[in-house]
Amino acid sequence: MAYGPRERIVFSAAQLIRRDGVAATGLRHVVAHADAPRGSLQHYFPGGKEQLVNDAVAWAARYAARRVDRFVTAMGESPTPGGLFAAMTRQWTDELEAADGTLAGCPVAAATVDCAASAPSTRTAVATAFAEWAAPIARALTTMGVPENRAPSLATLMLSTLEGAILISRAERSPRALQTVAAELGPILDAATST
Amino acid sequence: MAYGPRERIVFSAAQLIRRDGVAATGLRHVVAHADAPRGSLQHYFPGGKEQLVNDAVAWAARYAARRVDRFVTAMGESPTPGGLFAAMTRQWTDELEAADGTLAGCPVAAATVDCAASAPSTRTAVATAFAEWAAPIARALTTMGVPENRAPSLATLMLSTLEGAILISRAERSPRALQTVAAELGPILDAATST
Repeated sequence: MAYGPRERIVFSAAQLIRRDGVAATGLRHVVAHADAPRGSLQHYFPGGKEQLVNDAVAWAARYAARRVDRFVTAMGESPTPGGLFAAMTRQWTDELEAADGTLAGCPVAAATVDCAASAPSTRTAVATAFAEWAAPIARALTTMGVPENRAPSLATLMLSTLEGAILISRAERSPRALQTVAAELGPILDAATST
Repeated sequence: MAYGPRERIVFSAAQLIRRDGVAATGLRHVVAHADAPRGSLQHYFPGGKEQLVNDAVAWAARYAARRVDRFVTAMGESPTPGGLFAAMTRQWTDELEAADGTLAGCPVAAATVDCAASAPSTRTAVATAFAEWAAPIARALTTMGVPENRAPSLATLMLSTLEGAILISRAERSPRALQTVAAELGPILDAATST
């Protein structure tokens, strides 16, 4: 599947942001990483870096939400909340292993850390991203038997715990934190199903 | 209590880093924020910004570890794991409320996002910081009746969840995520005590 320059630029921005943070990600590097013509940046992102960052955050949220749906599908006929959380953490431990200990983080987390205080439009973008990522998780939990009034809370718990464990695993260059939270939270999530 | 210029610079660096991230925190701003003479930076931090960032991360870890001990003391004669986690989250919801919705984040998280891939010494500093923050939590859990072999895992779960909920609460300018994880995780942590 071939992507146009706009899509490649957004994807590259997300990749560089999650590795180096927003402030250290220069537009020049993004264009080079995307193998896109320099002029395309001004063409597709007249709002400059802030627009590109916001688009990268939105892209990351859509990607993460689709992954949630795929994880649920992959669990077959008896999906469980703990199984979903294990799959969400395994995506990151797999990446850590493939990259030999060097884990790039979550672009939504990076944009929050670097921009929440200084760029109101980016703060709004990350809030929307967390909500769009949590929504399919809460929906999935409900289909697994978690009461509807509790599913959004558990989705927030799962996202919070995953984001924090990614930070610790990056720091430690180790899957320990991600594996630990999956093991600790899994049975608790499963116990929330009413069936 | 009067602090010298070195302490003030480290404190100011931590405050600016947790608000704006590492890359956007200029040394000039730190010196101004600390009301320190410009030359003191070179004098106390011959290793430059990286040394200052690492010192700010180490300061934040010591501060957080002391807060854990104080939270436990404040709970009196019957401290509980859920009560400790509630106090840890309340520190952040109180700050959010006092700052009218604008929450600066955790400097250890910011240093992880901005420096884990680019500055090996800072990556080591944040790994050490997470470990030094987790240690008093695990010790406190043990004194509350959590089995010794499980306390470090639950400390990792608590730190991960807190860090992620801080990110979401910053994004949302709302205590919702922090309050949600405290409510969801509290009973689970309490159930881990053997008494």
